[in-house]
Amino acid sequence: MPPGGAEATREKLLAATHELLLERHAASASIADICSRAEVNVAMVKYCFDNKDGLLDALLERALQQLAGQLERLAALDADPKEKLRRHVSEIVRNYVRFPYVNRLMNERLMQADPESVARIGASFATPARAFYAQLLADGEASGMWRPLDPTLFFFSVVGVCEFLFAARPLLEQGFGQELDAALVERYSAHAAELVLGGMSAR
Amino acid sequence: MPPGGAEATREKLLAATHELLLERHAASASIADICSRAEVNVAMVKYCFDNKDGLLDALLERALQQLAGQLERLAALDADPKEKLRRHVSEIVRNYVRFPYVNRLMNERLMQADPESVARIGASFATPARAFYAQLLADGEASGMWRPLDPTLFFFSVVGVCEFLFAARPLLEQGFGQELDAALVERYSAHAAELVLGGMSAR
Repeated sequence: MPPGGAEATREKLLAATHELLLERHAASASIADICSRAEVNVAMVKYCFDNKDGLLDALLERALQQLAGQLERLAALDADPKEKLRRHVSEIVRNYVRFPYVNRLMNERLMQADPESVARIGASFATPARAFYAQLLADGEASGMWRPLDPTLFFFSVVGVCEFLFAARPLLEQGFGQELDAALVERYSAHAAELVLGGMSAR
Repeated sequence: MPPGGAEATREKLLAATHELLLERHAASASIADICSRAEVNVAMVKYCFDNKDGLLDALLERALQQLAGQLERLAALDADPKEKLRRHVSEIVRNYVRFPYVNRLMNERLMQADPESVARIGASFATPARAFYAQLLADGEASGMWRPLDPTLFFFSVVGVCEFLFAARPLLEQGFGQELDAALVERYSAHAAELVLGGMSAR
């Protein structure tokens, strides 16, 4: 293998898996499909990721790290807490569109409650998100704009508002006969931000 | 089999599965465990439910119908929309405590996106819930208390706020080191209701 070959193969496999899961609305893709798309020998999955679960874990990790990166940039922004939260809600919703498999992979891992996976999701997503909320809530409370809110409870409620539309997408599409298209995503993002921001107001 | 025997066996199996899933925090229970707890021959699972998935579907269905029953009683109540919604949020949260497996079973079936399961969840849960919200939102808007809100978007946001704490329970317990005990459930229920109700106010 050429120097850097394993790293390049890893990237190819992650990119191919991302593409396939996106095309298939997050339904599963087989190792054979992934390797054929990546133009990589199937043995490389074992070499780079141990197995398919390892590949999916790495894919989830990568998406969650992008999310954490967005939080850092948003935290550093010179904007008022309301504006930051509005942008943040819109970013979470958009992330579920860009990475439709994140929801499924995260829910699967949380349902299995495997300590190692939970630790990884905690470190790359839940802990940075709660820290971001803690700072934002403190800023908003200090300015007299928001009532006191618990960052832990806030984490579950904000992420819950944003994610359930995607987790329960079949209820929207089959149950209510509505498409999860760009227009609905826009409307939902605005609805979620207004609901949460309105609910935080100091009386 | 005595008359009514199949119905009684069905009930025993459902009750045993409910108990076992409750004791094990919604981790899975084997057919052998279930039948041993129900004191029923394993062949009866096939007779009553075809297979384990059929048994779990029936269990989910039963829990969702209880939920729909609560909605009907709440809708008929002579109370103002705010009070109804506050009680409703508290009921959803409490239901996730009483039936901790509902979340997992529903998410599993939604992830598989099997049209028949989705249709069942739609009919027994999503459609009655959205109808309840539509009436409530219309009443609250007519009284000048709430701004106009879309019942479909509202459905996903309210259920999302209530359910994610339970779906992501390992993040709370392992990630943040907090117990999902009665006190936290109370605090979460109050937090969720205040966030949603505050976010609905007409300006």
